[in-house]
Amino acid sequence: MSEAAPPIDVAIAGATGVVGQRFIEGLQSHPYFRLVAVAASDRSAGQTYGEAVNWQLDSGLPPDVAGMTVLPVADLVGHEARVVFSALPSKVAGPAETDLADAGKAVLSNASSHRMDRYVPLLIPEVNPEHLSLALQQPGDGFIVANANCSSIGLTLAVAPLEQEFGIAEMHVFTGQALSGAGYPGVSALDIVDNVIPYIEGEEEKLRTEPAKMLGSAFRPADIEVRVTTTRVNVTDGHLIAAHIMLQEGADLDQIHRALEDFRGLSDVQNLPSAPERPVHVHYEANRPQPRLDRDAEGGMAVSVGRIRQAGKLGRRAVDLVALIHNTKRGAAGQSILNAELAFRRGLFYRP
Amino acid sequence: MSEAAPPIDVAIAGATGVVGQRFIEGLQSHPYFRLVAVAASDRSAGQTYGEAVNWQLDSGLPPDVAGMTVLPVADLVGHEARVVFSALPSKVAGPAETDLADAGKAVLSNASSHRMDRYVPLLIPEVNPEHLSLALQQPGDGFIVANANCSSIGLTLAVAPLEQEFGIAEMHVFTGQALSGAGYPGVSALDIVDNVIPYIEGEEEKLRTEPAKMLGSAFRPADIEVRVTTTRVNVTDGHLIAAHIMLQEGADLDQIHRALEDFRGLSDVQNLPSAPERPVHVHYEANRPQPRLDRDAEGGMAVSVGRIRQAGKLGRRAVDLVALIHNTKRGAAGQSILNAELAFRRGLFYRP
Amino acid sequence: MSEAAPPIDVAIAGATGVVGQRFIEGLQSHPYFRLVAVAASDRSAGQTYGEAVNWQLDSGLPPDVAGMTVLPVADLVGHEARVVFSALPSKVAGPAETDLADAGKAVLSNASSHRMDRYVPLLIPEVNPEHLSLALQQPGDGFIVANANCSSIGLTLAVAPLEQEFGIAEMHVFTGQALSGAGYPGVSALDIVDNVIPYIEGEEEKLRTEPAKMLGSAFRPADIEVRVTTTRVNVTDGHLIAAHIMLQEGADLDQIHRALEDFRGLSDVQNLPSAPERPVHVHYEANRPQPRLDRDAEGGMAVSVGRIRQAGKLGRRAVDLVALIHNTKRGAAGQSILNAELAFRRGLFYRP
Amino acid sequence: MSEAAPPIDVAIAGATGVVGQRFIEGLQSHPYFRLVAVAASDRSAGQTYGEAVNWQLDSGLPPDVAGMTVLPVADLVGHEARVVFSALPSKVAGPAETDLADAGKAVLSNASSHRMDRYVPLLIPEVNPEHLSLALQQPGDGFIVANANCSSIGLTLAVAPLEQEFGIAEMHVFTGQALSGAGYPGVSALDIVDNVIPYIEGEEEKLRTEPAKMLGSAFRPADIEVRVTTTRVNVTDGHLIAAHIMLQEGADLDQIHRALEDFRGLSDVQNLPSAPERPVHVHYEANRPQPRLDRDAEGGMAVSVGRIRQAGKLGRRAVDLVALIHNTKRGAAGQSILNAELAFRRGLFYRP
Repeated sequence: MSEAAPPIDVAIAGATGVVGQRFIEGLQSHPYFRLVAVAASDRSAGQTYGEAVNWQLDSGLPPDVAGMTVLPVADLVGHEARVVFSALPSKVAGPAETDLADAGKAVLSNASSHRMDRYVPLLIPEVNPEHLSLALQQPGDGFIVANANCSSIGLTLAVAPLEQEFGIAEMHVFTGQALSGAGYPGVSALDIVDNVIPYIEGEEEKLRTEPAKMLGSAFRPADIEVRVTTTRVNVTDGHLIAAHIMLQEGADLDQIHRALEDFRGLSDVQNLPSAPERPVHVHYEANRPQPRLDRDAEGGMAVSVGRIRQAGKLGRRAVDLVALIHNTKRGAAGQSILNAELAFRRGLFYRP
Repeated sequence: MSEAAPPIDVAIAGATGVVGQRFIEGLQSHPYFRLVAVAASDRSAGQTYGEAVNWQLDSGLPPDVAGMTVLPVADLVGHEARVVFSALPSKVAGPAETDLADAGKAVLSNASSHRMDRYVPLLIPEVNPEHLSLALQQPGDGFIVANANCSSIGLTLAVAPLEQEFGIAEMHVFTGQALSGAGYPGVSALDIVDNVIPYIEGEEEKLRTEPAKMLGSAFRPADIEVRVTTTRVNVTDGHLIAAHIMLQEGADLDQIHRALEDFRGLSDVQNLPSAPERPVHVHYEANRPQPRLDRDAEGGMAVSVGRIRQAGKLGRRAVDLVALIHNTKRGAAGQSILNAELAFRRGLFYRP
Repeated sequence: MSEAAPPIDVAIAGATGVVGQRFIEGLQSHPYFRLVAVAASDRSAGQTYGEAVNWQLDSGLPPDVAGMTVLPVADLVGHEARVVFSALPSKVAGPAETDLADAGKAVLSNASSHRMDRYVPLLIPEVNPEHLSLALQQPGDGFIVANANCSSIGLTLAVAPLEQEFGIAEMHVFTGQALSGAGYPGVSALDIVDNVIPYIEGEEEKLRTEPAKMLGSAFRPADIEVRVTTTRVNVTDGHLIAAHIMLQEGADLDQIHRALEDFRGLSDVQNLPSAPERPVHVHYEANRPQPRLDRDAEGGMAVSVGRIRQAGKLGRRAVDLVALIHNTKRGAAGQSILNAELAFRRGLFYRP
Repeated sequence: MSEAAPPIDVAIAGATGVVGQRFIEGLQSHPYFRLVAVAASDRSAGQTYGEAVNWQLDSGLPPDVAGMTVLPVADLVGHEARVVFSALPSKVAGPAETDLADAGKAVLSNASSHRMDRYVPLLIPEVNPEHLSLALQQPGDGFIVANANCSSIGLTLAVAPLEQEFGIAEMHVFTGQALSGAGYPGVSALDIVDNVIPYIEGEEEKLRTEPAKMLGSAFRPADIEVRVTTTRVNVTDGHLIAAHIMLQEGADLDQIHRALEDFRGLSDVQNLPSAPERPVHVHYEANRPQPRLDRDAEGGMAVSVGRIRQAGKLGRRAVDLVALIHNTKRGAAGQSILNAELAFRRGLFYRP
């Protein structure tokens, strides 16, 4: 399949929310995809997108999308679009995405419902592109490809080079997560001004299981013991993730730096339109990465890593670091689009 | 020595900063101590305290203190005050506190300079009151009693009950620390709005060494492996501390709750004027403790602990929790005053 | 009626919201009133108050209130409580408060529904205590006494001394209002971090009409031309109000200071339990009042005024100032309770 | 002078601060200007720019600038650069800028020192391009062209169309100004979290005088009575400005909208590289403009205006509105660069 293939028609399910808006932003003038439909809850259906949405991105609402009529999600089942990007809330995503796949759609999902399903790839092209072929084992023409939770993606990208080179035995993970991760309206300002909330429902479980699935082989998660505490901080976008890692095999700081600096991904992945030049940016200043300064690295598609240090009596196996991911770009919509790009290039959207 | 002993004259060195102000607040109408002098840097000396200070506490500046003339710190050496509370910046505290102790003063210090000195007790009355007697081994009438860093105190109070009951082998610690910990003006607003700063100079080293000194016996720190990441968050007061703990001996969640709930301290400590009824408050709601809601528990002298959970394959030895301390009250000035109260009650301020 | 009169049974309608919580706080151990019932929307009714509420105040939830069963608001109609404090949302307050008054209750309302009704006093005891007698002209034993909008109360208290001494012809008013004014959850954090929202629905109209009603005589509003812009800022509590005033009669800065400093209210008002010693606190430092430092002046019942200056070619008639009010204390629940105290002392709760 | 003229060598004085950084950002790949030198205080001089600066913009520090050696400001006097952009602090800008002009430099200044000098144009090309010729009346080859204070520019651009069409008799102005206006480190986070500061030193005086100079003819300020209150809010960039205006001549809302919508500037101004397509963006939604959503309109060079309304008994002469300006782009460095572009196009940098 060549680059010159005609663009594929795509739709967005859950188009009005924080992640839905990032889908629209990311699909503007896309070389592979043409946005032909937006769908959302029944409350919004029937209005124009411009009426239904509370647009919140610095980049303005594209006028052509503003004029589209919002469809009920169920209408996408019979729609002509081959690909559906899903930003549906997890409580409705499960059956809705199954229906779409059964109807022959390729579903690129940001929802958590099907992430741990056996034949659903949990994909990061730079990390586990070989998982994509699992999708072909799903019945029929349709299939679901999921991306992980925003923090899981950030952590996985940051540590994948270490897992590949030295193996990871154990991780302690602590997060300070952004407000946009809770959707809109999400967190009340009264709850977060001059405050931190030390709990995010369901989040720690995801960090315990999703990175292991992505870092493992198709049906066998990596054997990494993970302990996690997740918190919400007063930041709009950008999740900060501190990790204390125990490697299986000792490494010098230089080797660790090199593993992270050199990390790229397969060459057909590097050339995808949304792929960053360097998926991992390494910082050597003591006070980086920071959400406001680093979240938009390479259009929000690169993860920034810093404060890399070895500490404690455990010596060369103990590595501590801090990672930063833009949670609604690489951590959500941008990841789904990158996944779709790989699927497109590998011919999965082609129907015989 | 009875309660009816006349109040002791005390001075504050470093009186104009964030912690100095908390000293003044905490010493108002104190049953044991009478504030007779305030000292600060040469820049402030000679002015009235009211002129020199940028008062920032909700509780107003007491008028009698406002009228005091600020002394140069060096003038405290020959001053009649028996006790000096030190909130000096660490770069000047070292020699200045030594001079004061050499001149026969009892120095209750919040500075880091002498914390790890062999004969300087690093004191939390509820945790290691027996360390106080180390002060008597310092030469002359004068001595230094130090309190630990704010985060170290919070962590130590939160885990002391677990160390005492089950032993602690290992801790992973992550903090989200408040702005007031950096003093005033401290952190620029431009650096912290919509942001987290993943680094605090010198802080991680303190958390690796101070809790172990306090949890150990007089000359022998507890043997606990500690790995730490400290960050600065956009909160005025109240450090949040997440800890993943590996106990030496397994325990059920019930036993852990009970150890924390029952923690008190010796009876003569419980009766000190600044001592909280319960040094550790246990929360069972998922989203507590929070800085804004919990920092002022028992006048800011109690530490709040929540999110107590056991996770991972490691079973009964693995305990995760979140603690919260008011960093300038229990974490600084309040701790020094409590330490002074214990010293007063145990007769250390009495000169033969 | 003497101070020794037995306490009056009171209920709160709309008890679970931000203002409802302030009512509970303000009625704790009240010398005149005993809280016997809490009511809220049908969604909360039937639960205990502790279950129904998301308590957000630093002062803890009183255990006896936590155990009360939340009633449906309609159940207050037949309830034994003589007095009902209403923090109902304006869309339900209108008919609900009328029903309560028709059933013989004295309703002290914080809602906007009846504020401009001819016989409903819009009361600030220090400003227009004589308006209270309007309540007696309402039919039956029941009646409604309203307090104004939070910003209107702050503005009115700040300028009442000037109106009384020099007359006010014209005011330009600009506000930076706190988040708690929008209730809970109210403003999304995503909307207000690093931002100001230049519009608050319905607010400007209230500032154009309510102060004039309070500053006028019973049926005749003061003749003041008011132009207003209201905005929402990222502050939890405390509305900042800037006013550019044109007096009817010129005055020197000294005279203006004295008018504000000397302002008190009638002696029977000064002695009410919730009345501040000085309803208006005058600041002379250039950078005050500030929400965080001044909102809790006299328990949040005093308004702070500063930046008093005369400017422009208009000379002695032109006065500019900045005022600060705690919007949920003096600006809402505290004001209703103070109003009830005056009604109690003047015998309005006595039934023949 | 044609577009094809070779680029002019320019230097920046005060290059390390918040505005200095915006100068560097704005001069990247500029068609008229080539940055050849950066100068700053003696404290920074001698270091590379990369060492001396605490870079804070999302757009990274350009590597070629990072490698430049920072000069002492005095060294620019004998430097070959024809044009000096000045972001010097006002306390040193006065004599330093005079020295530079005396040495034949064209000084485009953001400092306040010379703004009200008789022959120094206070320039906004869309508003008063004819003032530029004043510069030619300064002695020698050198001259100073100033831009106004950030809030003055925002207000002036927003009301210039109304002044031109209907005349302005009087304005009441209230601002909520961003942190970056105070420079770096500027405002302490401890002072602004959960707070508003109701005072900015020197700011109100500037708003009373600078717009009148810009809206008037060369030597005669417009006769507008201005009353002002300025405050600092917890926003990184973007000053919000509310204005209550009294026109000299009545106008309908439609006429006012049209005057603002149609405002452009002379055609040679419209074509300047930094000029926005529309200097004034009009919003019709009730809750706009907002700092975070609107500050970057047209690269931060357009002012956004909303909440346009007529109110009060004064009818068609009374207009209220809210304006928003990016204070370090259009309000500072961007304005200076735009001014330099006009000077370049009109041949003022040409030396016979």
